[in-house]
Amino acid sequence: MDDMASYVEGLGLAARRASRQLARLDGAAKIAALQGIAAALRAGAPALLSANAADLAAAQNAGLAPALIERLRLTNQRIAAMADSVAQIAQQPDPVGQIIEGYVRPSGLRITKMRVPIGVICFFYESRPNVTSDAAALCLKSSNAVILRGGKEAFHSNAAIVKLIAGALQSSGIDPAAVQFVQSTDRALVGPLLKLDRCIDLVIPRGGKSLIQAVVEQSTIPVLKHYEGVCHIYVDAAALDMADQVVRICVNSKTSYPGGAVCNAVEKILFHRDVAARLLPEVCGALAAAGVDLRGDSRACALYNRAKPASDADWNTEYLALILTVGVVDSLDQAIDHINAHGSHHTDAILSCDARAIREFVQRVDSASVMVNASTRLADGGVYGLGAEIGISTDKLHARGPMGAGDLTSSKWVVVGDGHLRES
Amino acid sequence: MDDMASYVEGLGLAARRASRQLARLDGAAKIAALQGIAAALRAGAPALLSANAADLAAAQNAGLAPALIERLRLTNQRIAAMADSVAQIAQQPDPVGQIIEGYVRPSGLRITKMRVPIGVICFFYESRPNVTSDAAALCLKSSNAVILRGGKEAFHSNAAIVKLIAGALQSSGIDPAAVQFVQSTDRALVGPLLKLDRCIDLVIPRGGKSLIQAVVEQSTIPVLKHYEGVCHIYVDAAALDMADQVVRICVNSKTSYPGGAVCNAVEKILFHRDVAARLLPEVCGALAAAGVDLRGDSRACALYNRAKPASDADWNTEYLALILTVGVVDSLDQAIDHINAHGSHHTDAILSCDARAIREFVQRVDSASVMVNASTRLADGGVYGLGAEIGISTDKLHARGPMGAGDLTSSKWVVVGDGHLRES
Repeated sequence: MDDMASYVEGLGLAARRASRQLARLDGAAKIAALQGIAAALRAGAPALLSANAADLAAAQNAGLAPALIERLRLTNQRIAAMADSVAQIAQQPDPVGQIIEGYVRPSGLRITKMRVPIGVICFFYESRPNVTSDAAALCLKSSNAVILRGGKEAFHSNAAIVKLIAGALQSSGIDPAAVQFVQSTDRALVGPLLKLDRCIDLVIPRGGKSLIQAVVEQSTIPVLKHYEGVCHIYVDAAALDMADQVVRICVNSKTSYPGGAVCNAVEKILFHRDVAARLLPEVCGALAAAGVDLRGDSRACALYNRAKPASDADWNTEYLALILTVGVVDSLDQAIDHINAHGSHHTDAILSCDARAIREFVQRVDSASVMVNASTRLADGGVYGLGAEIGISTDKLHARGPMGAGDLTSSKWVVVGDGHLRES
Repeated sequence: MDDMASYVEGLGLAARRASRQLARLDGAAKIAALQGIAAALRAGAPALLSANAADLAAAQNAGLAPALIERLRLTNQRIAAMADSVAQIAQQPDPVGQIIEGYVRPSGLRITKMRVPIGVICFFYESRPNVTSDAAALCLKSSNAVILRGGKEAFHSNAAIVKLIAGALQSSGIDPAAVQFVQSTDRALVGPLLKLDRCIDLVIPRGGKSLIQAVVEQSTIPVLKHYEGVCHIYVDAAALDMADQVVRICVNSKTSYPGGAVCNAVEKILFHRDVAARLLPEVCGALAAAGVDLRGDSRACALYNRAKPASDADWNTEYLALILTVGVVDSLDQAIDHINAHGSHHTDAILSCDARAIREFVQRVDSASVMVNASTRLADGGVYGLGAEIGISTDKLHARGPMGAGDLTSSKWVVVGDGHLRES
């Protein structure tokens, strides 16, 4: 236990030290370092594939679900995509030093609000290895040091990725402690990490509900939660004229990521009763044809008898699999209330041609992203033009929805006077 | 204890209900409600003065420090200023609905990021009664419900203010639970409040270190800390040509608020050794003449022998009184390192004519506000043009430094397509 505490403290102190170097780097040095990392990932593909093979074998032995194994898998194509993503982040505008606001007050006082790094970020995340390289690149781009703690299923893959990153940082003259990886999957490490508030400025947990709740309860460091996505599509009364779009958007929202194992996949579809008879069977048929297992409320099951009856728990569950629950509502109001009560405030969509229904839905659905006539899968930092994302915040503070490099900054007021005094 | 838990839960549920009404109010309704509150405060001045008299009598009996009693005192002039502040907040631009970003992606997807209310805010604060009306007005302006928990010294004054506000809200057709006051000074209420994460979205504690630490440790709700201000002025080697300004800024930074009992008052002044002999005695003499009790390191005491020797603790202490510690440093670097190590990252100033020293200080001092040739007392939402402030955040997330109504908002991505799908 003493060893563990001193290991964790060592990570924190090294990260704090590296963060001071990062805060003084200029943008060109960060671009060069990120390009070096992209090249190292490409050149290191064989090492990454062999580390990944160890993780895949362990996952198969442990009987992991096929969708989860698919998330874990690296291929030459996926490694090239990881490198491309880092290279793209390198070319983004530098958020640090950006003036968010600036004006001269009537007194002549010159006031600017400038983006500055947060400092040290501790990131807990699940099992997709590309998250490791994206998170490291976004933290570097925003001049933050990061301590990475990935899911145990991807342990070997993540360790191999961070080793390549550390080598590239060293070649660029940057302290490799800017990107550290927790070299243990022991859960007992989490508690001490979350109390290191003098070394760590922000904790970002991304993953299962129990992990996130444990982090929130133990942490004395501010936390930005990346909770589950219980995403909805509401098919409005005014959707008959767009029946083809409805089918395509519903299928895309569920199946465009392999196995549906992603937080912005739709989990529930609510049909207005006026269009349910026309659209529900067609949507369900298309989903079933794409391999989706359907559950429904009594009205939905009556319209599409291959759906199984949904339990109460179904309405609140993020499946992360090719399962989906459909229901019928009596009104727009009922749909909005249901989504606010049962959803996870992540991403919810309306499909409608009615401007007033859209206006109402957009105003009252309390979610990080509200989509209109578009796939829920579009809730993504890349799609929004943020470059890559470190995740999708379900919190209401600091950053909400897809978070890019700019969201990994704090601000500083710089106030320049010439002998200015406070009068009262 | 059961009674207490149900009282606290009742506050939370009522606030959540009120927040839903607030989220649907248009800007004109909020302006009218705020103007009604301003009028109610003016008309209710006699009631406020008599409630305040009870608090003042209790404070005198309890032997409270004169500066703290002064903070507590209401006068007709101060009540008029409270009403004016509410009326000014009414006229600010409405932050809710503001589009922070908006663009069309190459695919034709229209993306906007819109300010929305946070929801329910719980505010813990110290003993100035005007904070009550400012906080209520800023929360209303940003369409948030608020639960107010003021310091026990101002209990009667705060209760009287909130009673007037509730009456004004009711006259405007707004649920008075939009602004609630915790009708008890029992510390045991704090724990249950901080676990009400399904009803409260944000906790803002403002006050003593022990209160804030207790809040951070217990809260499962995100917290925005308003810690102490251990503010510094660094008098640079290049400050000889602005000796008069130096004296005026130092005196103003310490004494422009009665008793120096305010978080943006300067607590430490560091002189570069090259100018200490010329400037330190003059600055200290002027401070002493204004009633300030001076402490110093050995070099400072040698230059100004009426200063008492400072203890180690003096360098980390927020006095909130007319006490100040002065020291001599060998370099700009030493000043920056000292401020980052001993300050509270609130507000720190450099007084200098040297552009390179200013650039270095502004970049490296890690504080919410960095002032150049200006009084630390100018770190204030009103001075920065934010209207009133709910406080000065010493956190690095969400909002840093003076926080106005705009900082009491979250955001929502609104994404409008026409059948847009995710391609990969």
